[in-house]
Amino acid sequence: MNMFEVTRQNFDSLFPKIEYAIENADFISIDTEFTGLYYDEHSKPSLFDNSAERYAKLRYSVQKFTLSQIGLTMFVRNAKDNCYSTQTYHFYLFPFPFGSYDPRFSVQTSSLEFLKKNSFDFNKWVKQGIPFLNNIQERNLTNEMAAGYLFSGLNNDDETELQSLCSKVAAWLPNSKVGDILTLSLPKGSESSYVYHTDLRMRFAHIWTSSNPFDQIVVEHVDKVKRQLLERENHSSHQEYQKQQIIQLLGFTRVFRLLQISQKPVVGHNLLMDLIFMYDKFHNPLPDSYAKFKQDIHKMFPSIFDTKHIHYCIKRFLESALLFTTGNLKELYDGINQNTTILAMLQPKIKHTESGDFPASFPHQAGYDSYMCGVVFLRLCHFLHFQESGSSHFKPCSFKDYLVTMKKFKNSVNLIRAMVSHIKLDGEEVLSLRPPLIFVQSTKAGTRLISQQLAAWFSMYGQVDIQMMNSREAIVAATNFHCAREIISAFRQHPLIKVSKYRFWEHSKLGQRILWGSLAIATVSGLVLLYNA
Amino acid sequence: MNMFEVTRQNFDSLFPKIEYAIENADFISIDTEFTGLYYDEHSKPSLFDNSAERYAKLRYSVQKFTLSQIGLTMFVRNAKDNCYSTQTYHFYLFPFPFGSYDPRFSVQTSSLEFLKKNSFDFNKWVKQGIPFLNNIQERNLTNEMAAGYLFSGLNNDDETELQSLCSKVAAWLPNSKVGDILTLSLPKGSESSYVYHTDLRMRFAHIWTSSNPFDQIVVEHVDKVKRQLLERENHSSHQEYQKQQIIQLLGFTRVFRLLQISQKPVVGHNLLMDLIFMYDKFHNPLPDSYAKFKQDIHKMFPSIFDTKHIHYCIKRFLESALLFTTGNLKELYDGINQNTTILAMLQPKIKHTESGDFPASFPHQAGYDSYMCGVVFLRLCHFLHFQESGSSHFKPCSFKDYLVTMKKFKNSVNLIRAMVSHIKLDGEEVLSLRPPLIFVQSTKAGTRLISQQLAAWFSMYGQVDIQMMNSREAIVAATNFHCAREIISAFRQHPLIKVSKYRFWEHSKLGQRILWGSLAIATVSGLVLLYNA
Repeated sequence: MNMFEVTRQNFDSLFPKIEYAIENADFISIDTEFTGLYYDEHSKPSLFDNSAERYAKLRYSVQKFTLSQIGLTMFVRNAKDNCYSTQTYHFYLFPFPFGSYDPRFSVQTSSLEFLKKNSFDFNKWVKQGIPFLNNIQERNLTNEMAAGYLFSGLNNDDETELQSLCSKVAAWLPNSKVGDILTLSLPKGSESSYVYHTDLRMRFAHIWTSSNPFDQIVVEHVDKVKRQLLERENHSSHQEYQKQQIIQLLGFTRVFRLLQISQKPVVGHNLLMDLIFMYDKFHNPLPDSYAKFKQDIHKMFPSIFDTKHIHYCIKRFLESALLFTTGNLKELYDGINQNTTILAMLQPKIKHTESGDFPASFPHQAGYDSYMCGVVFLRLCHFLHFQESGSSHFKPCSFKDYLVTMKKFKNSVNLIRAMVSHIKLDGEEVLSLRPPLIFVQSTKAGTRLISQQLAAWFSMYGQVDIQMMNSREAIVAATNFHCAREIISAFRQHPLIKVSKYRFWEHSKLGQRILWGSLAIATVSGLVLLYNA
Repeated sequence: MNMFEVTRQNFDSLFPKIEYAIENADFISIDTEFTGLYYDEHSKPSLFDNSAERYAKLRYSVQKFTLSQIGLTMFVRNAKDNCYSTQTYHFYLFPFPFGSYDPRFSVQTSSLEFLKKNSFDFNKWVKQGIPFLNNIQERNLTNEMAAGYLFSGLNNDDETELQSLCSKVAAWLPNSKVGDILTLSLPKGSESSYVYHTDLRMRFAHIWTSSNPFDQIVVEHVDKVKRQLLERENHSSHQEYQKQQIIQLLGFTRVFRLLQISQKPVVGHNLLMDLIFMYDKFHNPLPDSYAKFKQDIHKMFPSIFDTKHIHYCIKRFLESALLFTTGNLKELYDGINQNTTILAMLQPKIKHTESGDFPASFPHQAGYDSYMCGVVFLRLCHFLHFQESGSSHFKPCSFKDYLVTMKKFKNSVNLIRAMVSHIKLDGEEVLSLRPPLIFVQSTKAGTRLISQQLAAWFSMYGQVDIQMMNSREAIVAATNFHCAREIISAFRQHPLIKVSKYRFWEHSKLGQRILWGSLAIATVSGLVLLYNA
């Protein structure tokens, strides 16, 4: 399998090709890699989280971290030979500082460890990553460029360099006459002389600057009239130059805007975090309001599919067709590729249209993951379509036919380790299917419960999360009914703790207070829903 | 020039050599590289900062960022041939996540840009960097290891892997009998099986685990008696293993502790930031109190020299001997090496004792910078020593002789862009030698002052910082008297603004209030000092 690796070096030349591929795609699959998962213990996913709480946690972390890779695979069907052509683009992303724009981002050590294990190239990331801006950053930079205040954000080293250029001009100017020329070397490693030209011109009213072929700045002593003339002459080319600079700095955001405009179906695997990252880094700072986030994302991408959610829903169905896999993308991809019997009939072929220049196909490289995800989606579409239509339609079907079949999964995005299994981007919040909470009490006098000890005991039976109520009582959320039943049964006779189903009325202080207190029924029923849903 | 590049791969084998070199050094020069300089605009250095304010700013930033490289050069004098042997060690540093220890750190984009321009190898950094812990992190990890709660801090992927191992054991155990064996493969990419062994044993009372030569975990079904026996047998080897793990995780901190114990003179160039970073990452979280920080650093390193500060103090003196350089380390090093006439007499030779394996000698690589800094220090020692002793001593001198000459610079550490030029680590705060502040008023009705515009106008004459008092008044701090004078003279006739010396009594609201108000004289004199120092 081949794909295009996209870096700062070839981004501009590949851009028209990417644009064409997006415009012509039937659907586009996406994967991202990032510098961290959760910023602190409070933002760690927990089985106690509902959708809005999860959004708040993810928002907090995403604001700290950044995207390091994004993979896009464009799938387009050729009806003649019932074949999907694909193009995969594997982008390295790294924010590029410019003037006062000097973003800070966080890194979670274990996430870099994870990338490292999956052959991530950190030199390529920092040295060749494509920049990006969200709308606010773009606006601020545009304004600052227009005002000419870029240097104020320079770091100390660059400012010292600029300072030194200015001193040279300041020393030379009074001792020179109109028409004299001063040639200045640019500081080593400067990627753009733009800031220097802009700043020198703004500070000295009687000079004009230009570049020579040796990448030096040529300063000419000019009179007021010539200066005004040159400014007028250069006004449009100056503006053009500013526009070009912004386009360079926008980088991947330009691709993101194409995706938005295209309104094509977007497919990802467990892609909530990807969506939140893309919103924050390419669109706008994440809103406080979860509802606003859902609305905006739905407007940007009106047709989203999450293969992890689809697998979760049809797991039993796939098993009945002898396809056993976990929700892990690589396992799902391998399982589907090995299982030729159930999925074979009239299955479309999938191929790469052109050989690219990227030989690696490692899982957890964003490009390859986006490809695997798109393939899995197509296979699941086909499987479900022919299951539902009862195999009576003996002609190959279009992608639109698939979309009709998959409608029930549209805009449902998987949630890991939460109170609910998924988020509905275009509808009401879903109800929890998790088992009731478990209540734990210390039964031995003087014994305090330790959250880690409880986790160690219970997690043997499945994923659990613990919330301490006080030093002798805790609530446990378990991932499924089986796990909850096992825990209650296994610890029935335990010498140190008593486990039981959590009963709000009996076990919570609030419940007790309500039961004996005087709150209105309306409020109470709301709380019951909250705790027993 | 050669030096040793130290990574996770050769750290253990080089450690005894490093230890020997530290113990035998006459002095040790240090340089570090880090992931960021200042975290936000509020923590940017300003000419308005006094020492304590600067410490607070640096503390805030250092807590966010981390060290990426540290360079040490050990200098030892051989009296026989009046020659200093040197050994340079160039360490890559990267925090290593383990169990619940999963540090997050920030990155400033322009700082990575800076490292990139200076040939920094980001793959070596992340993939081969040596870990480190401060005392608190070491204590927490030791406690958690002893309690066996490591898994609670695992990220979701690793926890899922551990979960899957547990499920396999839980399914197998009831259907097996004492003596039966279950072999489990470790998750891909696990660097340490320690967490898995510890956790399985803690969760299942009737198993014992060991490793086989294929890096698998062998689980044996054992009875209570055998389990207790094995636990007792393994107690000491288990503790030994935990101790070894901590030693691995301590990494560079072990070298830092050797530096502390040695109490050898430490030399750096503009090394305040290096000291603050080392305190936070290898010793303890930085204290709130600036006085406590100074005390602690002085206890750790009782003899510190800063070549940037020394250069600042003797700049005129060096110029009289025809050595003209800025305070930039590379320029200073080159200048001193080119200027053979004034510094030559009885100058000690400097050489590397052994050829190491690191060919690169780039500025801003911590190892090379530490080497340059040590060489500059020795040359400045020699220059000052023979200047002061009037060239009448015609025998080579010992390093102790140099230390006597340099005593006046001991424990003075340079401050860039601040109200004072340096910090005295073992004494009272120094007084400011900066020029008086400049007061700026808008003179045209309806015109607001814009901080960036003022900075653009004034910084032509030297470094300046602006503090807006309100929309029509600002205070300007200039780096030196020359710059302040030039500004006041250049803007005397300006059509939009009026500049003058800042007079606290006249220009500040507080001054006005005090003048006309009723505050006691004691308070007033304190404030005058603050604003006019």
